[in-house]
Amino acid sequence: MNTERMRSLGEKRSVIRELFEYGNRRKAEIGAENVFDFSIGNPSVPAPKEFSEKLCRMIAEENPLALHSYTSAPGDFSARKAVADNLNRRFGTSFCPENLYMTCGAAASLTISLSAVVNDGEEVILFAPFFPEYTVFVETAGGKPVVVPCEWPDFQIDFEKLAEAITEKTAAVIINSPNNPSGAVFSEECIKKLSAMLSEAEEKSGRKIYLISDEPYRELVYGGIEVPFVTKYYNDTIICYSWSKSLSLPGERIGYILVSPENPDWKAVYAGICGTGRALGFVCAPSLFQKIIPECIEMTSDISVYERNRDLLYGALSGMGFEAVHPDGAFYLFVKSPEPDANAFSEKAKKYEILVVPSDDFGMEGFVRISYCVSTEQIERSIPSFKKLAEEYSL
Amino acid sequence: MNTERMRSLGEKRSVIRELFEYGNRRKAEIGAENVFDFSIGNPSVPAPKEFSEKLCRMIAEENPLALHSYTSAPGDFSARKAVADNLNRRFGTSFCPENLYMTCGAAASLTISLSAVVNDGEEVILFAPFFPEYTVFVETAGGKPVVVPCEWPDFQIDFEKLAEAITEKTAAVIINSPNNPSGAVFSEECIKKLSAMLSEAEEKSGRKIYLISDEPYRELVYGGIEVPFVTKYYNDTIICYSWSKSLSLPGERIGYILVSPENPDWKAVYAGICGTGRALGFVCAPSLFQKIIPECIEMTSDISVYERNRDLLYGALSGMGFEAVHPDGAFYLFVKSPEPDANAFSEKAKKYEILVVPSDDFGMEGFVRISYCVSTEQIERSIPSFKKLAEEYSL
Repeated sequence: MNTERMRSLGEKRSVIRELFEYGNRRKAEIGAENVFDFSIGNPSVPAPKEFSEKLCRMIAEENPLALHSYTSAPGDFSARKAVADNLNRRFGTSFCPENLYMTCGAAASLTISLSAVVNDGEEVILFAPFFPEYTVFVETAGGKPVVVPCEWPDFQIDFEKLAEAITEKTAAVIINSPNNPSGAVFSEECIKKLSAMLSEAEEKSGRKIYLISDEPYRELVYGGIEVPFVTKYYNDTIICYSWSKSLSLPGERIGYILVSPENPDWKAVYAGICGTGRALGFVCAPSLFQKIIPECIEMTSDISVYERNRDLLYGALSGMGFEAVHPDGAFYLFVKSPEPDANAFSEKAKKYEILVVPSDDFGMEGFVRISYCVSTEQIERSIPSFKKLAEEYSL
Repeated sequence: MNTERMRSLGEKRSVIRELFEYGNRRKAEIGAENVFDFSIGNPSVPAPKEFSEKLCRMIAEENPLALHSYTSAPGDFSARKAVADNLNRRFGTSFCPENLYMTCGAAASLTISLSAVVNDGEEVILFAPFFPEYTVFVETAGGKPVVVPCEWPDFQIDFEKLAEAITEKTAAVIINSPNNPSGAVFSEECIKKLSAMLSEAEEKSGRKIYLISDEPYRELVYGGIEVPFVTKYYNDTIICYSWSKSLSLPGERIGYILVSPENPDWKAVYAGICGTGRALGFVCAPSLFQKIIPECIEMTSDISVYERNRDLLYGALSGMGFEAVHPDGAFYLFVKSPEPDANAFSEKAKKYEILVVPSDDFGMEGFVRISYCVSTEQIERSIPSFKKLAEEYSL
């Protein structure tokens, strides 16, 4: 029954949200500066000043009728051209505006892509840990999530387990690198092996397996790490992007879907994307934020803050004896719980006013996610509390 | 198969869009001033200057982190409070922010509402003529559209036909008043009768029938006409709104869903709306346009232009012998085709450079839709051409 599924989805409490709300109550009680809230993955550096200025100028100078009008269903041509040109310059690809479909953000990119390529009862492979809504989105498309866990300590793909997970019913595989919640980035070697394995499976079954690459953290990488650009390795690729993190615009719901033209059937897939956009009610992404894209395609927020935070937090926690995935990207630190139950660890951390998210909802037990998209100063102030927490576990 | 449905939806050409594109080619050939393009329902009056100024000020003065951040999933509390207060003042209702869910526009409002209350195989009653995407949205929710035609000349509900259409499987009824494409407004008497009939059917079957009221044209009414506010007549009401038309912001995708608290089960319905928002990928409507709502809740664009256009066009065409529904609202004139096939009539109109949309895609044959959201001057200049068209039919 659809309506029961929807109701229970609406009634289910999110662990992250509950922790965040607990944090707000606690801040009211003892002062915001005394609560170390690492629960939420919201950018902590603002959109560039130049971006706001350009946005203002556009509103002041352009004809409001044109600025706020419907764009074509797949999106404003100039925005799509700016994205294609930018990707071609950075990655040596040959995309054209016709490969792109502008969306209301990353969630929309994913729900549209999934419904365009997954049929009822088909399987979609997810690598744990993963963003909790992936299972919801896969089920909306009528698909069945199949989870392949990544493994300590580097959180690359476990290819033995992947080989077992691929079946005749596999319609798609979702990757998210840099990863929320682990911060891991899949290496070029990993992407090459993944592509080879999927291509082999396609040949064997004669059916397509789409690689859906969810990339809102593409630009958030540190220490000179490069994120392999997936269309160069695997033809049946669909890229889902959002400017939520790179430009600190999470609320504005602006992103895109790119259907790789290396797939000989790309036009049919693209038609499916357009059709799903209609069917779900997504036609035309927010126009003002589409029209600013050509002006800001080369910009990012000041990402250097996240790198500083990462170095500080990873260094300090490692020094105390905590074990964590070394995060090459995104703004999360994925820390092993010193006791088997990460929920109990998260509860204990609250005693020291530290809010961290247990990993169970990310499809993996025994870790906590620490979102370091906070002020560097909050991290500095939290270190004595982390130390006390470490002492409680005799680390 | 989902993917085949999506692909064919993506490949299907829209009659309106084709006509619009023909118009653009024709304008390039003979000059824009010589083509009388009445094909598209885009607002022709801009958003108020004060709106643009407030938007600029907000961007310049507010902290960009707060301005562009995620709001809570159902939407910014201040925006929802502003909407509730505004409706309560205008209609004597008692809504609270908790009854409201902010959305990415009217299409999103509809797809979310439908999936929240319709189960696979249930029926949704539509009154023809209707916005063509309604059938797509109903089918996405797993529902089956059941069409009840409105009748010449006043385009109110035909209650005999409605009585035949209601079955044990009826889960929802969609109304759209003021109507696209007819411009008709359902009278208070009509809404009262509809409510009584639905209540009776609910009592008989013991099952809920939701009245989904799609109201983007609520404020676009002329000659002192009042649009009955549906929650006052029927408890199981869900209102879908968008600022696309009233504030001329069609591209910005900002609207809301209101679940009437007069329904004793409203909290469960609201949970279903929240769950569907998650499932379809719609959580958090565009934040900048949510946050401007309290500042502009009392504003509309200069709607008087549409009333002038209506009077001019309705008067002129009636005088030539064309028969049309008297439009009390929206910005469409629904004209009887002088020959049975409205497509042939639309083709003939092209000879005189007049572009009007045949009604078939609106679920009704034998009419054309004339969108009078154009400059008054275009209407004035088109009148000699309409006269020639009337002469061709010896009206």
